[in-house]
Amino acid sequence: MDNFVFENATKIIFGKGVEKETGRETARWSRKVLLHYGSGSIKKSGLHDRVCRSLREAGVEFMELPGVVPNPRLGLVQEGIDICRKKGIGFILAVGGGSVIDSAKAIGIGVPYKGDVWDFYTNKVKAAEMLPVGVVLTIPAAGSEASGGSVVTNEDGWLKRAHDAPVMRPRFALMNPEVTFTLPPYQTACGAADIMAHVFERYFTRTAAVDLTDRLCEATLQTIIRNVPIALAHPADYDARAEIMWASTVAHNDLLSTGRNADWGSHMIEHELSAIYDVAHGAGLAVVFPAWMKHVYKTDVARFAQLAVRVWGVPCDFRSPECTALEGIARLQAFNKSIGLPTTLKELGVPGDRLEEMARKAAHYGPLGSFVKLGAAEILSVFKLAS
Amino acid sequence: MDNFVFENATKIIFGKGVEKETGRETARWSRKVLLHYGSGSIKKSGLHDRVCRSLREAGVEFMELPGVVPNPRLGLVQEGIDICRKKGIGFILAVGGGSVIDSAKAIGIGVPYKGDVWDFYTNKVKAAEMLPVGVVLTIPAAGSEASGGSVVTNEDGWLKRAHDAPVMRPRFALMNPEVTFTLPPYQTACGAADIMAHVFERYFTRTAAVDLTDRLCEATLQTIIRNVPIALAHPADYDARAEIMWASTVAHNDLLSTGRNADWGSHMIEHELSAIYDVAHGAGLAVVFPAWMKHVYKTDVARFAQLAVRVWGVPCDFRSPECTALEGIARLQAFNKSIGLPTTLKELGVPGDRLEEMARKAAHYGPLGSFVKLGAAEILSVFKLAS
Repeated sequence: MDNFVFENATKIIFGKGVEKETGRETARWSRKVLLHYGSGSIKKSGLHDRVCRSLREAGVEFMELPGVVPNPRLGLVQEGIDICRKKGIGFILAVGGGSVIDSAKAIGIGVPYKGDVWDFYTNKVKAAEMLPVGVVLTIPAAGSEASGGSVVTNEDGWLKRAHDAPVMRPRFALMNPEVTFTLPPYQTACGAADIMAHVFERYFTRTAAVDLTDRLCEATLQTIIRNVPIALAHPADYDARAEIMWASTVAHNDLLSTGRNADWGSHMIEHELSAIYDVAHGAGLAVVFPAWMKHVYKTDVARFAQLAVRVWGVPCDFRSPECTALEGIARLQAFNKSIGLPTTLKELGVPGDRLEEMARKAAHYGPLGSFVKLGAAEILSVFKLAS
Repeated sequence: MDNFVFENATKIIFGKGVEKETGRETARWSRKVLLHYGSGSIKKSGLHDRVCRSLREAGVEFMELPGVVPNPRLGLVQEGIDICRKKGIGFILAVGGGSVIDSAKAIGIGVPYKGDVWDFYTNKVKAAEMLPVGVVLTIPAAGSEASGGSVVTNEDGWLKRAHDAPVMRPRFALMNPEVTFTLPPYQTACGAADIMAHVFERYFTRTAAVDLTDRLCEATLQTIIRNVPIALAHPADYDARAEIMWASTVAHNDLLSTGRNADWGSHMIEHELSAIYDVAHGAGLAVVFPAWMKHVYKTDVARFAQLAVRVWGVPCDFRSPECTALEGIARLQAFNKSIGLPTTLKELGVPGDRLEEMARKAAHYGPLGSFVKLGAAEILSVFKLAS
């Protein structure tokens, strides 16, 4: 196990009706708030009304900045920074999923920073302060509600880049599984792929002796595998929705990577896909991850066999751990297919003509990953295995 | 799943040599510190020197209050409160295991409180503020380094009572597995029993649909079951010691009880034992828990069978879940015995002549537990099953 520091102060308020606490939790931080959200689905569902009422009742004054799209754009972030500065905003409330939260965090680190907010995403500087951010979560997937990460797309060149810093954890997250009852099946499935990918990125480590975190990872994966099919068959099953929602946070609040090196190569590869083709992040991960696994599994067959046996219930083939490992990867692909996700780039709607360009862009800042380091040629192999 | 709030801001600094961070972390809170510890084993090991040097290098002035004993006493707590008030102490640094940390927390809540600190432990009042506490952990067991709990024994009547409040979580915990290499085998084993008990108290719930937390509990138990025998056979095995130490925190930082009701009956029963006979808390739990399980398992045979299969690897007897459940309890007893723990009250050194008195005292404030509510008669049955 490696040395580590783990500190996660995000206050989770979880359960039925918790959005009525929005005003009270927000007022602890500021009474002048930017309310940030997406396309307006929260208006149709009535959540927008409930949140606004709660803010007003707590005496919180707020300005609205809607319009966040999946793969959130730098342009809107810069608009948000301008508004916060001009209006003296003291807190950003993100009502939505990962894109809205990531956009809010980008605004939050941009406001006190004198340079261009894109500097954080090109790793020119590390975020040292952030205007406080709170969350009312609507989509369990990204885990951004309790993580220090944010991913933003720069329209100039369609570069999708990430930044991560301890100060970027939200102050609170209000999580009501009921608001996820109306998620379309495809979005529920994409969320599942994203959650599982967050666990996989941590699971595939070269750090030895990581028994507890291995098992916590496996517990989280099994929870998703059991509950997502239930939620798809019964969208208003509170228990299944609650398991998925809480698992989404646990998968990405950094507990599961304590004391171990994580990979993140597959996420970086997927970012190239969704930056150009604007595919759903989870759908992209569902295609990229099994291909990545096929490319790298020989590096640590035992670990892949362990995953197959413990998580997928594959009987261990003691004479051929490799067969066990490959059966685990096949089960992941079969699971993705069973919940309605694409399994190839073609099914994802990505043509084969720009794979080399994407591989080159992905490796632009150096090789990706840490379980196995992948240069442009290896990334291209992964794309081909995904074709 | 029940609604819940989860907030745990304790900063964990984990790994080889982390005690050298003591001064820097402490100085963030105050430069006038009470250094609280036990019988002096930290002097023999050299940890006391390293901690004091780190404090001095950071310019922190400190007063020492040693003398905490297992089952920490109210008398020393009151002495600590007096010192902190008279000397204007701003921070309490606990260097030790659960008893030292619990004593530090009791001092910390006592200082700003105008009444008698025992009021918290009789639940007359709930702690709303605490002089900040930090930890250098030496024994993985109690989980107090990141929990909001504290247990203190009042010499007047030998009452052992607990208090729990969110403000009672330590600000940081420095956790170096190397300092546990020299723990005597019996103390390592008692720690294991304590950690497992913290998980069991949460595992045995009447809340339905708690899939993720069930599996996280099982992951933590499996980690202990695998690594404690390794640490006993090889006391300086860093990896095994690290797994045990991190599992001790995860078992009791409240993540595992998110969204589910916990029991705590067995802990309360054990408190009666260790208040009168001053037995090690973990050893008492090793005797009480299997007896409690035998008394209550019919309430939810499926849950006990699940534990047996998933944690102990018992083959499921599909025609008799009850046999499966009982085999799981037998495995726990066999495990306890294999790591050198007592399995009966007699082996623990507790005679049979005061069982009724202890059962009556345990139920003094009303029935214990929530998985099954136990009055004095039922507690006596548990004691008899443990005899």
